[in-house]
Amino acid sequence: MKPIQVGLLGIGTVGSGVFNVLRRNQEEIRRRAGRGIEITMVADLDVERAKSVVGAGVQVVNNARAIIANPDIDIVVELIGGYGVAKALVLEAIAAGKHVVTANKALLAVHGTEIFAAASAKGVMVAFEAAVAGGIPIIKALREGLTANRIQWLAGIINGTTNFILSEMRDKGLDFDVVLKEAQRLGYAEADPTFDIEGVDAAHKATIMSAIAFGIPVQFDKAYVEGITQLGAADIKYAEQLGYRIKLLGITKRTDKGIELRVHPSLVPSKRLIANVEGAMNAVMVNGDAVGTTLYYGKGAGSEPTASAVIADLVDITRLHTVDPLNRVPHLAFQPHTLDAAMDSLPVLPMSEVVTSYYLRLRVADQAGVLAKVTGILAGAGISIDALLQREADEVGGEGSTQTDLIILTHDTREGTMDQAIAQMQALPTVLATITRIRKEELN
Amino acid sequence: MKPIQVGLLGIGTVGSGVFNVLRRNQEEIRRRAGRGIEITMVADLDVERAKSVVGAGVQVVNNARAIIANPDIDIVVELIGGYGVAKALVLEAIAAGKHVVTANKALLAVHGTEIFAAASAKGVMVAFEAAVAGGIPIIKALREGLTANRIQWLAGIINGTTNFILSEMRDKGLDFDVVLKEAQRLGYAEADPTFDIEGVDAAHKATIMSAIAFGIPVQFDKAYVEGITQLGAADIKYAEQLGYRIKLLGITKRTDKGIELRVHPSLVPSKRLIANVEGAMNAVMVNGDAVGTTLYYGKGAGSEPTASAVIADLVDITRLHTVDPLNRVPHLAFQPHTLDAAMDSLPVLPMSEVVTSYYLRLRVADQAGVLAKVTGILAGAGISIDALLQREADEVGGEGSTQTDLIILTHDTREGTMDQAIAQMQALPTVLATITRIRKEELN
Repeated sequence: MKPIQVGLLGIGTVGSGVFNVLRRNQEEIRRRAGRGIEITMVADLDVERAKSVVGAGVQVVNNARAIIANPDIDIVVELIGGYGVAKALVLEAIAAGKHVVTANKALLAVHGTEIFAAASAKGVMVAFEAAVAGGIPIIKALREGLTANRIQWLAGIINGTTNFILSEMRDKGLDFDVVLKEAQRLGYAEADPTFDIEGVDAAHKATIMSAIAFGIPVQFDKAYVEGITQLGAADIKYAEQLGYRIKLLGITKRTDKGIELRVHPSLVPSKRLIANVEGAMNAVMVNGDAVGTTLYYGKGAGSEPTASAVIADLVDITRLHTVDPLNRVPHLAFQPHTLDAAMDSLPVLPMSEVVTSYYLRLRVADQAGVLAKVTGILAGAGISIDALLQREADEVGGEGSTQTDLIILTHDTREGTMDQAIAQMQALPTVLATITRIRKEELN
Repeated sequence: MKPIQVGLLGIGTVGSGVFNVLRRNQEEIRRRAGRGIEITMVADLDVERAKSVVGAGVQVVNNARAIIANPDIDIVVELIGGYGVAKALVLEAIAAGKHVVTANKALLAVHGTEIFAAASAKGVMVAFEAAVAGGIPIIKALREGLTANRIQWLAGIINGTTNFILSEMRDKGLDFDVVLKEAQRLGYAEADPTFDIEGVDAAHKATIMSAIAFGIPVQFDKAYVEGITQLGAADIKYAEQLGYRIKLLGITKRTDKGIELRVHPSLVPSKRLIANVEGAMNAVMVNGDAVGTTLYYGKGAGSEPTASAVIADLVDITRLHTVDPLNRVPHLAFQPHTLDAAMDSLPVLPMSEVVTSYYLRLRVADQAGVLAKVTGILAGAGISIDALLQREADEVGGEGSTQTDLIILTHDTREGTMDQAIAQMQALPTVLATITRIRKEELN
């Protein structure tokens, strides 16, 4: 049988990885897939650079539509990124009857419903293992490995840049800005790191996993997104003293009222495996009612780890492209006609309805009665305290006035309730700076 | 479409879990599979107990062959265990055109070649996610998630009983025999724990993963198997002082000469995630040339975790039972006609050809010259020393004679070379007890 023919849209870091791994392991992959898989066309604006990567024998064009128009191409791999031209090209490829593999989490988190509907109507597959957590086969685990389960929650370190920054802040006791510059110098953070450090990239990935876990449409617009730019070295240190580490987690959880979907820094017990995932590594915990808690760990980015996921999708499509679409795994794990009803019964909750526990740090005047006022406000709101840490007072400013840090861990409470309590505490004249609030997840 | 019909052979712990989870999550599972999955027949020698589990509406028989003979049954789930009647029934089910799901690692590790050949000839699937690491979808990850990769090695904690025992030995400083009794009392170890504590169960699972990882037939007879019965609390304590924990690992590795396939206690750096997998939990590390190192963690046994894996297989078969067998994933991940050639080019190596590093503990007389003799023997064999720990001498016996423990960590060396060096050291009159040798794996 002749090899299945693949066209790459974009041959940057990931595209080069896909090309190199497919060529290096072609015998191994053919022994698995039962058929060769060959990249026969590449589109890139920089034709010369693309040619230097793929060498002779692969057609390089500067117009992606030449690939989509080529009837010999079976699968189009979209590695352009973003919502603009990538969206148009993916939809055109689908319309042309091509199967699509993409690593584009932003596109799927925002326009997934439209794209998957188009693919279903045309009977083609859109595969996206590479969109979440790089080489870790987490999409396959969720879509196929845990199908017996009612998934209860998942929580993941799904952005390597921010995990690298947080690891460095903890190891070296440095503040965010300093470590960000180092990460940029080392290539762990981009020149414009906004999507990573503000949590947007993690929220794209959490949105996709939420849909697959619970059988709801992708709803990025309803995700709560908070990054790591406000974290200070002091909070990381205090968390450590209390037995926690701070990680940027993408979390989605089933509750009686609906689905929580949120990305924010979180205190995690130091003894959990996921608290010990360091540097640019990724990990996702998934809790199902039958299986209990499972964890998946590996490189979440980079040329060949991401290529590993792209090629796994190519192999799956090579196996299944001739079968009836009903015999394939649905794009979002659940039969597509059931998604809308599930959206009604499982709405994504506003952040004010999320229930979790909290770490609070208050900069207070070191004088009698402060603690009573603060704990009184919490008690009045029905928020119970799990642990309290009062630091020795620092001398600051003139006239012997002193300040101190008051750190409070709470039990579970509704975010809206906590918002009100924080506003009340913030209004106290003895609370001298903006209160730091970090959510805490026990993950058990 | 009418539900796909499943017959259970055996309804003990796992079978009950399969029945209960399938019923509890039937809507969720139907939304994924696109079709209902129902257990309509159960065979068990204890018909009354079986009836009390499944209630009315499910036919209970005491003869498994009645299920195999029933033309309405699409899939047979074998949960009997062992090589005897289970083998006969699996082969009969295949011959009757049934798809088979099994959790039986012993059967597949020993008779897999025969069983998979029969299934391929008949065009049916034999699925076995539950045979390795319970609910962790490690078979799916290896067979489908990492298809891009040339797998280099994998190492797993794949027996919960022994991991529980080792965790307790470390936590409480107790010796093996004491903890085994406790584990039996708590139900973590069976009345006859031989298969677990001697490493046989782990070797069955490692054998299956080795075949899938490297594209070779299952070759349990060539696995090296060593259990944990000889481990003492002292070794666990010394390992800890050197920055290691001791875990029973199933390891399989690709080398220039062939495949290593071995189960034995191993020192693992304490900072590795897998070193922190405690109690009855399982975890498998997989290293591929593209993806790097990945890890999969979860419950390796128990009623519902194992049921989670069995049902995932039922869903896969429900999707794929009507397609051409060529469109399915091959049983052992690689096209079956390629396995025999791979066995020739990738032979499973005898243990004497394995290259690893070592922890050695020698009980020696506390007198001048002992260290020089021991290190001289190692140097003579070309074995270099990574670290050396000499304990303070203990007073033992009369006349002021003292003994001490000498602990040596070596760099990589061939097992056969180490065997000879140990024999030479053992022959020294100043070496007073049997030398303890534990292999050490850096896993990086």
